[in-house]
Amino acid sequence: MRPATGYFFEDYAVGQTFDHAIPRTITHGDTALYQALTGSRNPLHCSEPFAQAMGYPTTPVDDLLVFHIAFGKTVPDISYNAVANLGYAECRFVQPVYVGDTLRAQSEVVGLKPNSSGKTGVVYVRSNCFNQREELVLTWVRWVMVQRRDAVAPDAVDAARGTLNFQTMPDPELISLQAAFQADRATIAQATGGGKFWEDYVAVERSDARAVVEQATTVPPSIIKHPAGITIDETDHTLATKLYQNTARVHFDLHHMKDSRFGRRLIYGGQIISIARALSFDGLENAFTIAAINGGSHLNPTFAGDTIYAATMPLVKWPVTDRVGALRVTLTAFKNIDPNSAEFTTAPEESKVLTLDLTLLIPRRH
Amino acid sequence: MRPATGYFFEDYAVGQTFDHAIPRTITHGDTALYQALTGSRNPLHCSEPFAQAMGYPTTPVDDLLVFHIAFGKTVPDISYNAVANLGYAECRFVQPVYVGDTLRAQSEVVGLKPNSSGKTGVVYVRSNCFNQREELVLTWVRWVMVQRRDAVAPDAVDAARGTLNFQTMPDPELISLQAAFQADRATIAQATGGGKFWEDYVAVERSDARAVVEQATTVPPSIIKHPAGITIDETDHTLATKLYQNTARVHFDLHHMKDSRFGRRLIYGGQIISIARALSFDGLENAFTIAAINGGSHLNPTFAGDTIYAATMPLVKWPVTDRVGALRVTLTAFKNIDPNSAEFTTAPEESKVLTLDLTLLIPRRH
Amino acid sequence: MRPATGYFFEDYAVGQTFDHAIPRTITHGDTALYQALTGSRNPLHCSEPFAQAMGYPTTPVDDLLVFHIAFGKTVPDISYNAVANLGYAECRFVQPVYVGDTLRAQSEVVGLKPNSSGKTGVVYVRSNCFNQREELVLTWVRWVMVQRRDAVAPDAVDAARGTLNFQTMPDPELISLQAAFQADRATIAQATGGGKFWEDYVAVERSDARAVVEQATTVPPSIIKHPAGITIDETDHTLATKLYQNTARVHFDLHHMKDSRFGRRLIYGGQIISIARALSFDGLENAFTIAAINGGSHLNPTFAGDTIYAATMPLVKWPVTDRVGALRVTLTAFKNIDPNSAEFTTAPEESKVLTLDLTLLIPRRH
Repeated sequence: MRPATGYFFEDYAVGQTFDHAIPRTITHGDTALYQALTGSRNPLHCSEPFAQAMGYPTTPVDDLLVFHIAFGKTVPDISYNAVANLGYAECRFVQPVYVGDTLRAQSEVVGLKPNSSGKTGVVYVRSNCFNQREELVLTWVRWVMVQRRDAVAPDAVDAARGTLNFQTMPDPELISLQAAFQADRATIAQATGGGKFWEDYVAVERSDARAVVEQATTVPPSIIKHPAGITIDETDHTLATKLYQNTARVHFDLHHMKDSRFGRRLIYGGQIISIARALSFDGLENAFTIAAINGGSHLNPTFAGDTIYAATMPLVKWPVTDRVGALRVTLTAFKNIDPNSAEFTTAPEESKVLTLDLTLLIPRRH
Repeated sequence: MRPATGYFFEDYAVGQTFDHAIPRTITHGDTALYQALTGSRNPLHCSEPFAQAMGYPTTPVDDLLVFHIAFGKTVPDISYNAVANLGYAECRFVQPVYVGDTLRAQSEVVGLKPNSSGKTGVVYVRSNCFNQREELVLTWVRWVMVQRRDAVAPDAVDAARGTLNFQTMPDPELISLQAAFQADRATIAQATGGGKFWEDYVAVERSDARAVVEQATTVPPSIIKHPAGITIDETDHTLATKLYQNTARVHFDLHHMKDSRFGRRLIYGGQIISIARALSFDGLENAFTIAAINGGSHLNPTFAGDTIYAATMPLVKWPVTDRVGALRVTLTAFKNIDPNSAEFTTAPEESKVLTLDLTLLIPRRH
Repeated sequence: MRPATGYFFEDYAVGQTFDHAIPRTITHGDTALYQALTGSRNPLHCSEPFAQAMGYPTTPVDDLLVFHIAFGKTVPDISYNAVANLGYAECRFVQPVYVGDTLRAQSEVVGLKPNSSGKTGVVYVRSNCFNQREELVLTWVRWVMVQRRDAVAPDAVDAARGTLNFQTMPDPELISLQAAFQADRATIAQATGGGKFWEDYVAVERSDARAVVEQATTVPPSIIKHPAGITIDETDHTLATKLYQNTARVHFDLHHMKDSRFGRRLIYGGQIISIARALSFDGLENAFTIAAINGGSHLNPTFAGDTIYAATMPLVKWPVTDRVGALRVTLTAFKNIDPNSAEFTTAPEESKVLTLDLTLLIPRRH
């Protein structure tokens, strides 16, 4: 079994697998808390009649609540001794999850990159989350910097091994259609308050979604600055990490963190992801579900008292069915800088806390 | 669709209607959070067998949770650019709401009163909340001070238009009996711990409920000072506003509020209403449901760290059926002054934060 | 009915009984909030398939959530005017509780010990909690120091009366088997991430569980220092007390507490119990249910900002069935001292905040 002090960098090998503990049945209590903790207003997740009008049997659970619960399961085996959560790639939301479903997660180490300092290394992990019918609901790769148990001399550091690079372009075949988005336009606009559909987003339009994203820069930028901000207090983020059963002590052990370089508790990066997503509801209208997190990084730490804002840059879009279109965007979160304010143009780099490369599914007009 | 920066005073016209977005299915997660956020102990809302003994099919959702959720839906269209929420009138709780019901809201502008400053105006709105069977469950009027997009010279200010006055006397025919209150006296007293029934409240007794309330002053005042106080912290009120999907940024954007005249976040006034109602449980025994909020005002702002206390003045009472009586009261909330303390008699006016004119339904003795 | 200012020491008599108010139906909202407030990860309470594999019809509610809800019901009658909650004994968890069950509580005064100061006295109470089928689910004794309404001269203090001592050795016949723990070893270890079973705990082994606990000291101590700590903030503990409908004002009335000797709100001791229990999940593997709290005391007060740690000392163990074994332990909680740190050996006595003598049920290897 897992050592009481968790795994260190030396303990990992490429190909090693973990069946993470703590299966979890999702309840309406979880979904209500998620809403109160993030300010989510997506009617797909809070209105059963609307979810049914869209083609779901009942209200699906928010994609990111599923992500956080699955992620939390991996922490004791993967990031208990993490220094930093460096990045995400190839995250796909494959199946909807409903209240009453039970989630479990497993991971495989896919790459290892010792740092030249000899004190830490980067562990690359593919994690999969399954429901009680053993159906894959979510898969993602992340890489974390993990401490070595025993430092080695810089010249004794091993070579990197395994896979360290992940595709940054979404493969359209990987996009799962969780529902047909079959409600009519008026029903959708009434439920969300948003009149923008897939056709209304300015991005590079391609039927060939394999085209390189770099070409998106030929489109004049049309950054969407979301209007609101949400301040995170201590109890917000610690309730969230405990709800997600995430045991990374940096988030909820003040006594321990007082002696860290931060001097206080760090907010779980996933809370920033959720708040940025919730803030994007105004401006990124009718982007109902996340098909994929193609990549992403936490750029700076956040702390209680910080106010989070968000902005979205549409990149590429392509049709998926005659009712659904995909929109790939960069969602960026900032702390204590409102993108709508004059000060934004001179915002220091430390104010940028998160960047996510997302593929979103949006209903088409007809 | 709604402008990204919300509507300003100039954008409203008498007769204009809004079908508010974000239908919401109420879950047991919402009701548990409401209890944890407010300290509610009314057994009608937390004991299914007791609710059934009273004649409900199952536990009804707290009247005020319904109010806050419906109210939250109106914020983006009505009070996004509000300076202050000035008052309420003619609020009627028409139908019980149960877990699983889905609520939506619509509003009509009924009056407009430009302020002489030329910078703001007061918008009077009638809002209605419906369940998934299109049955009216709640209706109310509120008026809010809203900013003009562009200030006008004081001598260019328009005349007021529409309806600006609302009846302050409840119409007994408007009182909806949500249940027969059919449990026997012993069952009720056991469930609530309160032995006071409708007959035990000292107020002006009338079979003619249309009599003017002013006559209530002929009864010696019998103010009920509720014994407890509840302190509100930042996360309490911000969880509540996010649970209610209330997007008024004054409640949860500290970065923005630091530059306001308050220098910090304002607590949503509805949270004060809920806490005052929960505190009234001890002293206002067996006042199970709110039939109407005849009028009400937020008198002073509250902030994290404030402790809320409450006192109730019974005004008028009348029988409704042979099992149910109505009691009209003024419920007042105070901050940082215990009505049971000596200091209360010299409490500064700023300590009074809320006054509500309520009609409550209470079981009769037989 | 109960006086508005609650009962004082003089109001109690041995044999007096109370049928506490506010029956409560447990929902998934309560269980999700409990998890977010405590960090509980026991899969018995969060995975329906696992609970069913263990022999329960569905997920049982956490023992301590049941305890806190039942305890909360007793506060208005027993400890409204309490100075301190001194101790617990003979607490037995008799039946599992499920979402949808409705709990009520009753108490009997079993002992009264006036303090020699003439200002306070200790009230000993046996409380029982029943479900909607009138089945006993939980029973416990506690004693609280309660203020006298009117102080008496020290030489006028009455003699103690009733029962003031409670057995500290669990009677094995009182242990209720809530389930057969029938899942196989691999299923259990996978679900909890813990490979320790009843056979793996070092304690005095006896088939005769009546043997005196003192003999446990002949076993070399094998204290289990749980690895994590959890910081409690104001909203954490006040949400918990309101969720439990615990009305003791010391927990949530800051205005009142500013004038107390603490100068701030006291954290409900039950929150420390729950956090210590949740922390023990890593180290006290597979100790699924609490059969009994044989005794316990709150040793020092805790306040917002304190970080709680825990350590467990196994004492005695005995087989219960061929699938289940009992383990009696002392669970101790500390504030702001990590038992795994060097500073622990010189920890001041004030850092110890809780000691509980628990009997836990653990699956056996075969």
